[in-house]
Amino acid sequence: MAPKISAKPPKGTRDIAPAAMSVRESAFARIISVFRQHGAVAIDTPVFELRDVLLNKYGEDSKLIYHLSDDMSSNTGEKLSLRYDLSVPFARYLASNNIQSIKRYHIGRVYRRDRPAMERGRFREFYQCDFDIAGTYPVMVPDAEVLVVMMQMFDTLASQSKFHARAIGSYAIKVSHRGILDAIFTVCGVPDEKLRTICSAVDKLDKEPWDVVRKEMVVEKGLDPEVADRIEPFVMLKGSGAEILTKLRANPELVAQCAKSLDDMEKLFRLVDCMREGMPDRLVFDLSLARGLDYYTGVIFEAVLMDNTINLGSIGAGGRYDNLVGMFRNRSVPCVGCSLGIERIMNLMLKAAEEEAKAKWGESATIRATTTDVLVATVGKGTMEWRLKLCSELWRQGIGAEFCFNENWNMGKQVGQAVSGGVPLMAVVGEDEISQGVVKIKILATKQEKVVERTTVAAAIREEIERQKEREAAME
Amino acid sequence: MAPKISAKPPKGTRDIAPAAMSVRESAFARIISVFRQHGAVAIDTPVFELRDVLLNKYGEDSKLIYHLSDDMSSNTGEKLSLRYDLSVPFARYLASNNIQSIKRYHIGRVYRRDRPAMERGRFREFYQCDFDIAGTYPVMVPDAEVLVVMMQMFDTLASQSKFHARAIGSYAIKVSHRGILDAIFTVCGVPDEKLRTICSAVDKLDKEPWDVVRKEMVVEKGLDPEVADRIEPFVMLKGSGAEILTKLRANPELVAQCAKSLDDMEKLFRLVDCMREGMPDRLVFDLSLARGLDYYTGVIFEAVLMDNTINLGSIGAGGRYDNLVGMFRNRSVPCVGCSLGIERIMNLMLKAAEEEAKAKWGESATIRATTTDVLVATVGKGTMEWRLKLCSELWRQGIGAEFCFNENWNMGKQVGQAVSGGVPLMAVVGEDEISQGVVKIKILATKQEKVVERTTVAAAIREEIERQKEREAAME
Repeated sequence: MAPKISAKPPKGTRDIAPAAMSVRESAFARIISVFRQHGAVAIDTPVFELRDVLLNKYGEDSKLIYHLSDDMSSNTGEKLSLRYDLSVPFARYLASNNIQSIKRYHIGRVYRRDRPAMERGRFREFYQCDFDIAGTYPVMVPDAEVLVVMMQMFDTLASQSKFHARAIGSYAIKVSHRGILDAIFTVCGVPDEKLRTICSAVDKLDKEPWDVVRKEMVVEKGLDPEVADRIEPFVMLKGSGAEILTKLRANPELVAQCAKSLDDMEKLFRLVDCMREGMPDRLVFDLSLARGLDYYTGVIFEAVLMDNTINLGSIGAGGRYDNLVGMFRNRSVPCVGCSLGIERIMNLMLKAAEEEAKAKWGESATIRATTTDVLVATVGKGTMEWRLKLCSELWRQGIGAEFCFNENWNMGKQVGQAVSGGVPLMAVVGEDEISQGVVKIKILATKQEKVVERTTVAAAIREEIERQKEREAAME
Repeated sequence: MAPKISAKPPKGTRDIAPAAMSVRESAFARIISVFRQHGAVAIDTPVFELRDVLLNKYGEDSKLIYHLSDDMSSNTGEKLSLRYDLSVPFARYLASNNIQSIKRYHIGRVYRRDRPAMERGRFREFYQCDFDIAGTYPVMVPDAEVLVVMMQMFDTLASQSKFHARAIGSYAIKVSHRGILDAIFTVCGVPDEKLRTICSAVDKLDKEPWDVVRKEMVVEKGLDPEVADRIEPFVMLKGSGAEILTKLRANPELVAQCAKSLDDMEKLFRLVDCMREGMPDRLVFDLSLARGLDYYTGVIFEAVLMDNTINLGSIGAGGRYDNLVGMFRNRSVPCVGCSLGIERIMNLMLKAAEEEAKAKWGESATIRATTTDVLVATVGKGTMEWRLKLCSELWRQGIGAEFCFNENWNMGKQVGQAVSGGVPLMAVVGEDEISQGVVKIKILATKQEKVVERTTVAAAIREEIERQKEREAAME
């Protein structure tokens, strides 16, 4: 006998099982519905790109890019690599198709040869959900819409049940502006050539205390300690837009450097307020937010899950990047967008769905991965054809119907398949029913039964499906 | 200025533009709905697998597998390759998770370093839609369901409009059985060790005439010419199940070799008939069908588009493969499944959707890629906040609403955005409407207008959306 081959998925990747897939599919449907409500279109791009497309985009993270074997692509002379995110392929798509303006979403997997931490949702292959607006528009209007779309995504995921609301209903979006950050650094005395590297140091403030970040600035990056000390009070600023803008505007030197960016931020907060009338305010103007990627040029933001005031981690981020498309052609296209890191959210959604199932159906219940409405059961030799013909009719009417493959299973076994699969209804035909031209409909949750004419069975089942939905809605 | 990077996608791959994506998304939704009606669950597996998982599965096509750079995966000692199909990852998934029975679907992209022929739908990266039933069940029952699912997929795609029906409504499914083929070869005198290679030669009959295939058998593969001549009348057999079974059963020598397989095929045709009561018969028992892949062990089939009696090419295939899971662990799991080659179908669907749009909206019409219901327009300085607040309310009510980013656009420009985007309704607010607390709703198709209270605008728009749907249905 040949030795068996390992059946494991590669390190840092995983198979997704049916229950998790059903949670994922319904989450994606909700997210897509938000994107579409805002008039976005979908595009798709290949999983691999020409290597040059990806190089020089991700700073030192470029080392995490997966490359395809060169000898494999040598017949075309192409060197290929797996995509690292969806933003660079988007910019490449705009350049390739000479597109000046688009509002698009893209849900797809990306690849990073990072150290995996699967229990914390860090994988080598993972989904991103991106929404971006490209085009030359009045300042902050698309930026505000991107922020609102991001909030609506979290809101729609949280609205599924009280368990979902508990898991992801409590989030905040930290927002800042590269122009204001740079002005702060300049006012504090950071030399121009150190702006980006000091920005990277500030970006670590969500994980490290000020002392550690200050040390990086002074010891590693050679910043004058007095300059570092002047930065501290600024990057500690955090609060509502109005509050922080008032504090920043109290500094005439800073206003002289970035009056326009401050006005822009004021406009951003106002526009978001209009698009979220009557909804909770989720924005926090947080000057410790800096974002690692070099390509941002204006507003930057990051969504974090909150447990009261405790930050449970990032679940999405984005910002304005006006120069990325220009790396692929002479005329650039201004862009702003957000990206949801869906894996961490999916872990939370999966837990919430499990809790919801248990609350509804009891402690031993699990998430239902199938969506059939009825199991068609027949008893007695030679009834398989009855079984299949009944299914055939239901399928044609758009009703999800399953059946047992074994003709000689008794009723108990067939009920067992319905119960274990969470199928709400059964359509039962025995010898009596056949001779009378009727079908018995069993409602498994209530153990009720009713007998209907063979010719009206689809309509009767449809009616019971509606009742079932009402019962479930009443349980909320 | 830095030299610009090529913005092309890699050879054999392509970007998918918004119109094609909207066609694709609605096709996938229809296909998934068929899978779910049959009680199938979804799984997902990584895009790359350990290389050993893929080796020795695809015969000489193994040379088409894409490998990742070894030095890239060397930190884990793993050699990785991109998946070539979804069947081998499915078998690996069953083995890895010790699953004895499952009915699953999987829609995902696969990779083949083949010579691309993009205009004919042959790509290096393309989608497959797979549906498989794994488990030990009474003979032919799952096989029949797989065939019926395949037909329902084509039927649901064809049912979208008369243009779709014309494009893909005319298909046939050729079906055969490896056990019967092998028995035929044996009866004709093919030595055991030549069974598989003669089977491969027969597989070419859909592209080559008998003379060419006979030459391959005799000259290349060293088959006795008399044996080849005895094979010819068998592999020319093609017709209804009853017809072909009668002819085969007239040969006692053959019946002695494969009575069981003949009975099984008879059962298959009967079961499919039951599950397709009142629907056109699509099955053709075609003994020239052999299927290239080695791993099939029973029923094999292939769906072809027909123009009257002309075969326009394969759009899907499948069969029973009882030994594949056994390559990953000691106990095998019998499987049967089908795979849709979606790219060729998508090309046809895209053309049909274009024809449908032109028939509905005129020769200059294109496929609508967005799905918003209404464009919210305001006129006059300082009305942007009105615009956004109205959108905000509509979004909260689940209505797709877009708006123009430019506050100072006149009404003509805003109407232009609605018309060019195919948005059916507009909600218009000018200074008059603001002072009166009303909103004007414009129906673009009929040029009708109506004025509603600001507080009832969402309900009024919902009503118009329903009317719009009725109008469109009436146009069919």
